[in-house]
Amino acid sequence: MTLHHVGYLVADIGAAAEEFILLGFSQEWEPIYDEARDARICFLQTGGTRIELICPASPASPYAPLLKKFKNAPYHLCFETDGLEEAQAELFSRGYVPVRPPEAAPALGGRRVAFFMHGGVGLIELVERAC
Amino acid sequence: MTLHHVGYLVADIGAAAEEFILLGFSQEWEPIYDEARDARICFLQTGGTRIELICPASPASPYAPLLKKFKNAPYHLCFETDGLEEAQAELFSRGYVPVRPPEAAPALGGRRVAFFMHGGVGLIELVERAC
Repeated sequence: MTLHHVGYLVADIGAAAEEFILLGFSQEWEPIYDEARDARICFLQTGGTRIELICPASPASPYAPLLKKFKNAPYHLCFETDGLEEAQAELFSRGYVPVRPPEAAPALGGRRVAFFMHGGVGLIELVERAC
Repeated sequence: MTLHHVGYLVADIGAAAEEFILLGFSQEWEPIYDEARDARICFLQTGGTRIELICPASPASPYAPLLKKFKNAPYHLCFETDGLEEAQAELFSRGYVPVRPPEAAPALGGRRVAFFMHGGVGLIELVERAC
């Protein structure tokens, strides 16, 4: 399991991406619109660290309440794994509980992601490694 | 300016560090107690990413309200810079406002850190580079 990205909620994805570029990040992929989650998403990286900017596109987006809670801020770490089922079984054995079951993420080329909550480290995402 | 770490609030620093090690991180420095901030702090890293675990030691810690708001979660990015004064002048020119003025951080060997808020990306920390 390797760290893939830090998820970061923002209210204005264009303004945030522009500012992160001034802070030394470079844009990795063009922003996409994730219809299922009604959100705009883009990835930036610097050195060995990637951040995912997530911007709810309307108050109906499932990210809208999170943005209201966290404002513009990082809010989860995502780890890449070869086998999503095996990795989530391992997390369950350490007390993680599922938050969102595995589903395809358009911003990651359709790779499946899943979210889990842990009493000690909070919200963690898993993404299956690209073939 | 280069990314130095992701600040991460936790309620139990020992349990959180143990879990992050299982997620692939390794402990970089031993945990220290920061008396001025009444908090325990340690650093872990994986690949090119470093996280700083911050755990308020009592309800009087300035981190206690943040932990109440964010629970166990990342909450800021920290950037390393050669010149703190020059870097903060640059941030001010882009609309950042000061949150905490420069002060020595025992967890970073006494190097000065400062915190700033930006309308687009939220809370950012600067740390001066080690001599």
